[in-house]
Amino acid sequence: MDDLKLSSLKKTNFKRTVVSVGEHSIGSGFTLIAGPCTVENETQTLTIAHAVKKAGANILRGGAFKPRTSPYSFQGLGSEGLEILSQARKETGLPIVTEIMDTRHIAMVSEYADMFQIGSRNMQNFTLLKEVGKTDKPVLLKRGMNATLEEWINCAEYILSEGNPHVVLCERGIRTFETYTRNTLDLSIIPAVKEITHLPVIVDPSHATGRASLVERMCLAAVAAGSDGIMIEVHPNPKEALCDRDQLLTLAEFDGLVQKIQKMYRAMNDILAPSV
Amino acid sequence: MDDLKLSSLKKTNFKRTVVSVGEHSIGSGFTLIAGPCTVENETQTLTIAHAVKKAGANILRGGAFKPRTSPYSFQGLGSEGLEILSQARKETGLPIVTEIMDTRHIAMVSEYADMFQIGSRNMQNFTLLKEVGKTDKPVLLKRGMNATLEEWINCAEYILSEGNPHVVLCERGIRTFETYTRNTLDLSIIPAVKEITHLPVIVDPSHATGRASLVERMCLAAVAAGSDGIMIEVHPNPKEALCDRDQLLTLAEFDGLVQKIQKMYRAMNDILAPSV
Amino acid sequence: MDDLKLSSLKKTNFKRTVVSVGEHSIGSGFTLIAGPCTVENETQTLTIAHAVKKAGANILRGGAFKPRTSPYSFQGLGSEGLEILSQARKETGLPIVTEIMDTRHIAMVSEYADMFQIGSRNMQNFTLLKEVGKTDKPVLLKRGMNATLEEWINCAEYILSEGNPHVVLCERGIRTFETYTRNTLDLSIIPAVKEITHLPVIVDPSHATGRASLVERMCLAAVAAGSDGIMIEVHPNPKEALCDRDQLLTLAEFDGLVQKIQKMYRAMNDILAPSV
Amino acid sequence: MDDLKLSSLKKTNFKRTVVSVGEHSIGSGFTLIAGPCTVENETQTLTIAHAVKKAGANILRGGAFKPRTSPYSFQGLGSEGLEILSQARKETGLPIVTEIMDTRHIAMVSEYADMFQIGSRNMQNFTLLKEVGKTDKPVLLKRGMNATLEEWINCAEYILSEGNPHVVLCERGIRTFETYTRNTLDLSIIPAVKEITHLPVIVDPSHATGRASLVERMCLAAVAAGSDGIMIEVHPNPKEALCDRDQLLTLAEFDGLVQKIQKMYRAMNDILAPSV
Repeated sequence: MDDLKLSSLKKTNFKRTVVSVGEHSIGSGFTLIAGPCTVENETQTLTIAHAVKKAGANILRGGAFKPRTSPYSFQGLGSEGLEILSQARKETGLPIVTEIMDTRHIAMVSEYADMFQIGSRNMQNFTLLKEVGKTDKPVLLKRGMNATLEEWINCAEYILSEGNPHVVLCERGIRTFETYTRNTLDLSIIPAVKEITHLPVIVDPSHATGRASLVERMCLAAVAAGSDGIMIEVHPNPKEALCDRDQLLTLAEFDGLVQKIQKMYRAMNDILAPSV
Repeated sequence: MDDLKLSSLKKTNFKRTVVSVGEHSIGSGFTLIAGPCTVENETQTLTIAHAVKKAGANILRGGAFKPRTSPYSFQGLGSEGLEILSQARKETGLPIVTEIMDTRHIAMVSEYADMFQIGSRNMQNFTLLKEVGKTDKPVLLKRGMNATLEEWINCAEYILSEGNPHVVLCERGIRTFETYTRNTLDLSIIPAVKEITHLPVIVDPSHATGRASLVERMCLAAVAAGSDGIMIEVHPNPKEALCDRDQLLTLAEFDGLVQKIQKMYRAMNDILAPSV
Repeated sequence: MDDLKLSSLKKTNFKRTVVSVGEHSIGSGFTLIAGPCTVENETQTLTIAHAVKKAGANILRGGAFKPRTSPYSFQGLGSEGLEILSQARKETGLPIVTEIMDTRHIAMVSEYADMFQIGSRNMQNFTLLKEVGKTDKPVLLKRGMNATLEEWINCAEYILSEGNPHVVLCERGIRTFETYTRNTLDLSIIPAVKEITHLPVIVDPSHATGRASLVERMCLAAVAAGSDGIMIEVHPNPKEALCDRDQLLTLAEFDGLVQKIQKMYRAMNDILAPSV
Repeated sequence: MDDLKLSSLKKTNFKRTVVSVGEHSIGSGFTLIAGPCTVENETQTLTIAHAVKKAGANILRGGAFKPRTSPYSFQGLGSEGLEILSQARKETGLPIVTEIMDTRHIAMVSEYADMFQIGSRNMQNFTLLKEVGKTDKPVLLKRGMNATLEEWINCAEYILSEGNPHVVLCERGIRTFETYTRNTLDLSIIPAVKEITHLPVIVDPSHATGRASLVERMCLAAVAAGSDGIMIEVHPNPKEALCDRDQLLTLAEFDGLVQKIQKMYRAMNDILAPSV
């Protein structure tokens, strides 16, 4: 087990980690994660789950516990949201990833979800990192809004050092002075992660750009940069969504996007193939 | 109680909050908090406690649980550290402020400490904020490393909205591109906090500057900016300290500093007194 | 002419600008600009010029006047460097882009170069912008190290409003807290530029990443993001270069990279083609 | 002369530079610079000049050439503005500091002004730095919006290395993620500048905070931090001003502020006096 710790990377060779989430593997092939920002109700979530499954998604995302800047903003449906996600998994077979913010929820969320998400604001919540590190459930660790690569990797190490090697990193944009986009997607961090760790890494262009119109290009660029997958927010009717309206793709847009991503992934294999 | 929530500030007038910590009041007069970065052992902590008490400190700070970037760095003495702080309180009468990172430690830390500290990395740990909000113990809420005033105030609101009005804000420097200092102390946030909230606010120049040589000037500037207090890291022998060596004042330096701060505080009262 | 000003973009439709540089057009097809960071001597520059021409480059870059943080660092060969660039153009037919920092050099640089480059540090040197705006020579306007899109576009407008419509934007990384890379390449700005301006935009992954090992992936991602070209620093022997050693590609690496970029550009045309 | 270069500071001792501007000396005592953001007309400027002179200002500031984000914003009165400043000097005896952006204006501005100001956007306009370095007129060098101390000091060195030792640094706030203030005033840079250079340094709290309500506290804090002076924007009627309305003090407010600053400066001398 100790061989898997990042601190062991000083050895010159390492084998890339592949993380199993339900029947799906992250780090081998390209992973498509999609779903609503927040679980709003059963109809919304099931509609989305069936549509993204049909379009080719591998994992369903959806927030039941939402970290919100203000205590008076909608905080998520909580356990009721988990029930709805569970129903969506039952109907579609898609494994579920959902955010966890409270160590006391680990047992409950474990029952319903296939992968924990640690959000940006909790990247350095070391208590939470250690506790999910004591489980054997996969963890999607988002980069903090101003975290350096070194800080981020050390947070992954908090999980690994407790015995859980199933960690996937997620670049979701860093805070910069640019205001046109919500954050700045740092795609150069993808090959950088590959240089210094054995962990899979995916990209969340929805939160990074905050603009639906930029998501497609950033997905294609993420494939080109070597990302192991993308995580996208979708909604049947973005204008009616409870949060993050400006960055949500419609279900039809997601369907078209998946086809382009798949073409791009095949093209990259061809481009990078050693010439004869 | 609802009148104390920050969201109630839209009313044109507000009365400044004074927060009692043991026998001491923050927000009335100037508060001097001092102590080691981390509780290393009984001798170190008791030596410091007696020295800062004699120099004029009002509250003793000291870390028992330390948030560290790497899981392999010293993580603090934990409950043993709390015992030592408790002993220091018993001997000196100084109330204790110490960092809390885990909701499961609330009961234990409550027994030993007079004030919870929420560190920068946990500013948006909403679960932790809500739980300390359910106690009636004072909370020192540090500003996140890149938090805006609005985000910070909303974190205070998380505590207040659960029923605990005893919140003190602490400016500890924000991350900027300057490398000469560890962070950049944002003193303009002090009068800004006073404009839009009723909460006391203090300054931590040790973490902000990361350089002992800059601490004195920043303490004096903090008084001039209207801060309700300062929090300083001291050590009998900075070169031997377990962490943050570059920013620690010696006990003699702290003694000299307190005298200057007290002169400055009196001078400010004179400068701001309405002329006749 | 006024129709070309960016301020005229409030009209709902606009036609994309194509900028001619010598015989080459930027904004139609994909542009490859390559060359040394700084012109060191005739042999170095001619070797590079012939190699990048053969590999498929469209324009030769090279610095004769170098903006250096310290006045005691090498400041470039000046007019001697321009002579060498001119010789390279004569031998290879490649048009030349070179940085200009001084309004008094406009006439001299105009004689030798086909395109002015305005560097990051001079993005808001409004005097210089206005003066190159009075010429009819193409201008490559690099984004300032912390410029927002709006600030950058307004700098282009300074040039356009003086009568010169031949402006190409260049994203070269923005300053962030990440230290693994020299700057953070902001690829989401590429589709953003396309949304709100009619100007071509290219990417400089060499300065953005500061690491040769990341350049290839960022070039491919730039194509995917919709960039109109890339600008790369190369050197026959990076370890001996006078500046920016860590980010320079060898001539062989550049040759291999061009082939991948060309494949990627064709793949993108296929991926984005409307399905029948 | 070479002894004055900052690069000579590696020697263990240095003597603080005092810069003469007209009859006034910066770096000995506390300097008060005040005036309009921009010279709007003769009446406005003369009214201000007489008022700030009476209140105790030592130098009059005023912009004739204004660096504006957009080419369509008011660009300043140019040479007409210089004439008005010259008239103000004649009537009040106050020396004049005004921004210069164009090397071709050096002779003209030299005739009217006693001190050149290099603005934030031109901090790394190395051509301009070298040219003012060839004159013997004092230079007020503002810190770039995201400049590190090292970058800033190197820009001063550009001036000194050309032979002009009369440089005064000016901290004017750096760009951060805080939005309540226009920029973030970095007061810890004041003692840092004093540690590593022999140059005087002043503070511009008007541009740093962007809010008139915060200026007084930041002036007092600047004195406490060890600044050699402050530069303040004032206006007879801030609501009618052509630019920067939110940060301008009225003439009456400036008068009251000067009295507080003078008291603070005397208090600091007392606080820092060696105890007997």
